[in-house]
Amino acid sequence: MNIGIIGFGYWGTNLVRNFALQKDADLKVVVDSRKERESVLTKLCPTATFSTSADELIKNKDIDAVVIATPVHTHFELAKKSLENDKHVLIEKPMVPSTEEANILIDLANKKGKVLMVDHTFLYTGAVKKMKELIDSGDIGNIKYFDSTRINLGLFQPDINVLWDLAPHDISILNYLINEKPRSVQATGVSHTNNGIENIAYINVNYDSGFMAHFSCSWTSPVKIRMMLIGGDKKMIVFNDVEPTEKIKVYDTGYDHKTDEEKKQVLVDYRTGDIFTPKLETKEALSGMAADFISAIKNNHSPLSDYNSGLEVIRILEATQISIKNNGKEVLVKQ
Amino acid sequence: MNIGIIGFGYWGTNLVRNFALQKDADLKVVVDSRKERESVLTKLCPTATFSTSADELIKNKDIDAVVIATPVHTHFELAKKSLENDKHVLIEKPMVPSTEEANILIDLANKKGKVLMVDHTFLYTGAVKKMKELIDSGDIGNIKYFDSTRINLGLFQPDINVLWDLAPHDISILNYLINEKPRSVQATGVSHTNNGIENIAYINVNYDSGFMAHFSCSWTSPVKIRMMLIGGDKKMIVFNDVEPTEKIKVYDTGYDHKTDEEKKQVLVDYRTGDIFTPKLETKEALSGMAADFISAIKNNHSPLSDYNSGLEVIRILEATQISIKNNGKEVLVKQ
Amino acid sequence: MNIGIIGFGYWGTNLVRNFALQKDADLKVVVDSRKERESVLTKLCPTATFSTSADELIKNKDIDAVVIATPVHTHFELAKKSLENDKHVLIEKPMVPSTEEANILIDLANKKGKVLMVDHTFLYTGAVKKMKELIDSGDIGNIKYFDSTRINLGLFQPDINVLWDLAPHDISILNYLINEKPRSVQATGVSHTNNGIENIAYINVNYDSGFMAHFSCSWTSPVKIRMMLIGGDKKMIVFNDVEPTEKIKVYDTGYDHKTDEEKKQVLVDYRTGDIFTPKLETKEALSGMAADFISAIKNNHSPLSDYNSGLEVIRILEATQISIKNNGKEVLVKQ
Amino acid sequence: MNIGIIGFGYWGTNLVRNFALQKDADLKVVVDSRKERESVLTKLCPTATFSTSADELIKNKDIDAVVIATPVHTHFELAKKSLENDKHVLIEKPMVPSTEEANILIDLANKKGKVLMVDHTFLYTGAVKKMKELIDSGDIGNIKYFDSTRINLGLFQPDINVLWDLAPHDISILNYLINEKPRSVQATGVSHTNNGIENIAYINVNYDSGFMAHFSCSWTSPVKIRMMLIGGDKKMIVFNDVEPTEKIKVYDTGYDHKTDEEKKQVLVDYRTGDIFTPKLETKEALSGMAADFISAIKNNHSPLSDYNSGLEVIRILEATQISIKNNGKEVLVKQ
Repeated sequence: MNIGIIGFGYWGTNLVRNFALQKDADLKVVVDSRKERESVLTKLCPTATFSTSADELIKNKDIDAVVIATPVHTHFELAKKSLENDKHVLIEKPMVPSTEEANILIDLANKKGKVLMVDHTFLYTGAVKKMKELIDSGDIGNIKYFDSTRINLGLFQPDINVLWDLAPHDISILNYLINEKPRSVQATGVSHTNNGIENIAYINVNYDSGFMAHFSCSWTSPVKIRMMLIGGDKKMIVFNDVEPTEKIKVYDTGYDHKTDEEKKQVLVDYRTGDIFTPKLETKEALSGMAADFISAIKNNHSPLSDYNSGLEVIRILEATQISIKNNGKEVLVKQ
Repeated sequence: MNIGIIGFGYWGTNLVRNFALQKDADLKVVVDSRKERESVLTKLCPTATFSTSADELIKNKDIDAVVIATPVHTHFELAKKSLENDKHVLIEKPMVPSTEEANILIDLANKKGKVLMVDHTFLYTGAVKKMKELIDSGDIGNIKYFDSTRINLGLFQPDINVLWDLAPHDISILNYLINEKPRSVQATGVSHTNNGIENIAYINVNYDSGFMAHFSCSWTSPVKIRMMLIGGDKKMIVFNDVEPTEKIKVYDTGYDHKTDEEKKQVLVDYRTGDIFTPKLETKEALSGMAADFISAIKNNHSPLSDYNSGLEVIRILEATQISIKNNGKEVLVKQ
Repeated sequence: MNIGIIGFGYWGTNLVRNFALQKDADLKVVVDSRKERESVLTKLCPTATFSTSADELIKNKDIDAVVIATPVHTHFELAKKSLENDKHVLIEKPMVPSTEEANILIDLANKKGKVLMVDHTFLYTGAVKKMKELIDSGDIGNIKYFDSTRINLGLFQPDINVLWDLAPHDISILNYLINEKPRSVQATGVSHTNNGIENIAYINVNYDSGFMAHFSCSWTSPVKIRMMLIGGDKKMIVFNDVEPTEKIKVYDTGYDHKTDEEKKQVLVDYRTGDIFTPKLETKEALSGMAADFISAIKNNHSPLSDYNSGLEVIRILEATQISIKNNGKEVLVKQ
Repeated sequence: MNIGIIGFGYWGTNLVRNFALQKDADLKVVVDSRKERESVLTKLCPTATFSTSADELIKNKDIDAVVIATPVHTHFELAKKSLENDKHVLIEKPMVPSTEEANILIDLANKKGKVLMVDHTFLYTGAVKKMKELIDSGDIGNIKYFDSTRINLGLFQPDINVLWDLAPHDISILNYLINEKPRSVQATGVSHTNNGIENIAYINVNYDSGFMAHFSCSWTSPVKIRMMLIGGDKKMIVFNDVEPTEKIKVYDTGYDHKTDEEKKQVLVDYRTGDIFTPKLETKEALSGMAADFISAIKNNHSPLSDYNSGLEVIRILEATQISIKNNGKEVLVKQ
C-alpha cells in the first residue's frame, strides 16, 4: 500500500515520521508548497519523494491513500478530489469547517467504498483507552459531569479560532466516552487580535439527561494545563495529560444525598477513599492511529476514529460558532 | 474594645481563634444555637462567654462590635439589628443575598457612623497584595483576561449554590485588582441534588473594554484546584493557591500581533522569557482582616474589605442568579 | 491528671495547644525562662499558669506529669529530677545525648513505676500507621532498602547537628517499620559554620541481612523535601510528606532476577503496574501522641513511642556521632 | 565527513537519529552484532549501511570518525583500534573502565592528532549551560555543597554497577561547574542481585576547601527523580530535570552566621527572597553534542566534552569502585 501526505508542517512532520515506520505501507510522496521543506524531508525520510503539487499526488495511480495535514479551509477540496480519484483519505482534525461539507465527503466515501477517517489522535492514547474501559465497566457509575481544560501558549491560527484548533481533541474524547447525544451548546470567547478570531473560549455542552460538559480552551496561557475531570456517581476520574506517567487517577470519591423532609434540607454524605492510578499502555498514539488507518483499508473495517467521530465533532463546533457570534446564546446541535 | 461573634461553626472557629489573639480588642461573647458547642469554646477561648442568644449579645451595652458568621439568609436581620443597636459589624462573605439588602445596611451604617465590613479574607493574603502591587506598578501591562478555578469536594450548602459559596473569594479579588466596572454576566451550572441548587457552575463577566473574566466553581471535584490566571499584554500572572510557598509566578510571556495586509493574516510573535516567583508576606490573612476591622473602628478609617467591596460582589452574584435560572442568558450588572 | 510543660518555644507552643485541648488531663503550668513568653501563654491558654522555674514545677505535688521541650542538653537533668519527684515524663526527641543517660532514665522510670515516653510524633501520623499496616500485612514483601530525605531551610541549632535535630523523625519511623536490629552506621557531613556543627549530613545504616537504610538531612536546602522510599521485593512505597493529601503511594513495581548460567549474566525482569494511594487518617498526630501519653499513665500501658523507641534512636545517633568525627568510618551500633 | 556508529541499541538509536540529521557530515555505516537490527535501521536511516562487523568499519578508509555506543568493557579496544586506524573517536559515557586505559587512549589521540571525545550529553543541555553561566557570573557566590539524586526503575547492567551507569552524568556536570579538584571519595551501595553488582549506591566527593558533593543513584526506585541542589553562599540553584520546562530555579536564599562570643553560640540569620526561573535554550542536547564532535574535527578545536572531561569522571568512578568494595573507606582520587 502506498501513501502520500499533503502538508509537511508541524503536524505533518509527525505524520511523516510515523507513517515512515509503519510495516504494512510505504510512504511514497510528501507534498508541501514550500520548496525549502524538501531538504528536511530528505533527512527525515529519504525514501519518500518531495513534491509541491497536491494535484499530481492525488492523480497518481500508484498512490492508494492520501493523508491531509493542511490548513482546515483546504480540507474539503483536497479530500473530495482524493476520494473522487479513488483514494482512501485520512484528514487532520478538525475534519472540515461545516457539517454540510462533512456529509458530502461521507456520502462520497460510501459511494466510492473508500475509508474516510479523521485523525483524532487522542482516541489512540493509553489514557483514553483506559478511561473508556473504566466507564464501560460501570466502575465510575453514571457520569454526571465532564470538565476539560486545554490551555497553553499556542500558535494563533489565521483561519480558525481556538475552539476549532484545540477543542476537537476534547470533544472527540467526550463523544467517545459518553453515549448520549448533545442537545445544545453555549460558547463565549474573547479575541485579542483585530481579526476577531477568539484566542480564549469556553463551551458548555448540554444534554437532555442533565449531564453537562464544559470546555476551556486558550492559546494565551503562560502555563500548560491539559486536564479533564469526569465525575460519576460512584467514582471520579482525573486525566492530567501533562503528568509524564501517572496520567489517570481514579478517585473512590462520591456523595449520597437525601432530603431531610422535616428541615427541608438536602443532606449530603461525602465519601472519600483510596485513589487508584492504573498502568497505561505507552505506545505512541499517532503510530496507533496510522496503523488503524492502514488496517482499516487492508481489512475493510471501520477505524476507531471514523467519519462519524469526525462529523460529531463538527456538529458541536458548528453550533459553538453560531453561539459565540451571538454572545453565548444557546444553540441546538444538529442531529 | 469588646467583640462578640455570632456563629461558632467551621469558619466561626477560625474567627474565634483569630479574634482571641488580637491585641487591641477582647473577645467577650460567642453565640451559637447549638448548646454543645460551649465545651469546645471553653477549651479554645476560656475567657469568652458562651451564649445561645444572638439577641442578648446584640443588645449587650458592653459589646462594641459584632461579627456575623451564620448562614447567609440570616446575615441581613442580624446585621441590621446590630447596627440599630450601635454596633460595628463584620459580616462573613457573601454579605447578604441581594443588593437591595446590602444598600439598606450600607445606608444604616452611614447613618449610625459605624463600620460595616465584609470578610473577604483573600484581600489580606500576601499573594493578593503582591498581585495588586504588580498590576498597579504597570509591570503586567493592560489586563486582557482573568480566569479563576476554585474546585474541591466541598460541603453542599442547603441555602445557597456553589457560586454564592465559593465565587465571592474570586470576585472580590477580581474587583480589587481590576478597576473597570463589569457590564454583564452569563452563568451556567448543574445541580446533582433534587433541590435544584447548583453544585457546579461557571460564570463569564463581560466588560465594555473587551476584558473578560471567567470563573469555574465546584463542590464536586475529587481534586482541589485553586488557580487564577491573569493575562496582561506585558506579562502574565499565575496564582496557584494550593502551592505551599510559590503561590505567585510572573511569566515574562507575551505576544505581539500585527496584520499582514498582503496575506490578510494576523501574525503573532510570541515572546517567552524568565519566570519570577516573588517572596510573599506570610502572616495569616484572617488575622490581618480581624486587625483591619479593629483598626477601622479605632482609627475611624475605611477597611480594605469595606461595604463597597461587599456590595460589588453581591451585584455580580445577583446577576449570575438571574442568568443561571435563564439558561445562561446575558444579564446586566446593576451599577 | 495535671500536666506541666517545660519549654515554651516553637515546639512547646504546639505542645501547649494540643495538651490544652485534651479531655482527660489539665494543663496547669507552663515554664519558660523568658518572662516575655507569659503574655503569649495568656492568649493561647489562659487557664494555665506561667512560671520561669522548672524546679518549682517539678516539685509541685499537684502535678502528675511533666513534658520536657527544652534544648537537648538539658533533657537528662530535667527528666531525672522529674522522675525522682514521681512525675511521669514525656521528652521531646531526641531523648538525651547518649545511650548512657537514656539507660539511667529508663532504669529510674522502671524503679519508680512511671511512664517515660519520647515524642516521636511521626509514629502517630496516618501515613506512618498506614505504612506499618502495609508492611505487616506482607503486601510489600521483604524490605530491601529504605531511603529518606529531609531537607529544608532549617534553624541551625547551637548545640546539636542536623542529624540529632532531624534524623530522629526518620530513624524512629525506620525502627518502627523494620524489625531487624542495625549492625553499624557510617555518617558524613559538612559544617558551614565555624563551630564545626554539621548542617548537612548523610547516614547509612547497615544490617546483617543486607538491608540498608540511607538518610539525607539538611538545614540548608532552598526547597523542602520530605520523602521516604521503601523498597520491598513485591511492592514499593513512596511517602511524600509535603503532599497535602496523597502522601503514601504504593507502587506495584518490582523485579525478578535470575542468572543466565550460559552467558553469566543477571537477567532482570521488570514489572510495573498500577499505583495505589490509600486514604489516610487525618487526625493531628501531636494530639494523638499527647492522648497516648495520658492514656499510658491512666491505663498503665506502654505508649507507642516508648522509651525503647527513644533509646534505639539514640543508639544510632550516638554511633553516627563517632562516625562523622572519624570521617565516615563504620561504627557498630550498641545493642 | 563520513561517520560510522558501532552499537545500535537504545542509546545508539538516539545517536543514529541525531547524526543522520547533522548538516556537515554523513552517517554512512551502523554496526550491530544483532542482524535483526538491520530492518530497524532501514526504516530509521535508509541512507546508512548496516553491518555486523566493527572491524570492517574501523578499517574502512572512507570513514573519518567512529562513534562507539557499545557496552563499557568493549570501549577501550574499539577506541584504540579506531585511533590506530586514524579515525576521530566519540565514546559513550563512561569512557573506559579505568584511568589507565583512558590515559593510553588520550596519548594515542594526541600522537595521531585525532579528536577523542566522550558523550557527556548533559553538558550540552540548556539547563547545564545556564547553571555554568550563573555560577561563572558570581551570582551564586562560593559554592558550598552539591547534592544530586538520579533514581528510577533502570535497566540493571550486567557488567557495571549503578554508579558507572548513572553517575557519569552528574559527575561530568559537577566537574564542569566546579573548578576545584576532588581529594577523595567514599562510596557505599547495596546489590539485590547475586552477582554483587550494586543497584543502589551513594557517593561523597570530598574537597580540600570543605566543599562536598553527594550523589544518590538507583536503578530500583519506583519514582523518577533527577534533582540537583547547588548551594552557594549568595544564592542556591535547584535543577529539577523531570520538570518539562521550569528546570532551573535560582533561590535568593542564604544565611549569614556570626559567633556570639558571650553566649558562645553561632547565630544564623536566614534570608529568603524571590525565586528566579530563567528561560533555557531548548535545542536537543544530543544534537548539540554531535555537532560539537563534527565541528571539533572540522575546525580542529577541543570539544566541550573532551577527553579530560571523560578522564576526570573515570578518576572519581575508579576511586568509588575501591571504596565501595572496602565498605565506604575514604579513597583518594588520582590526579
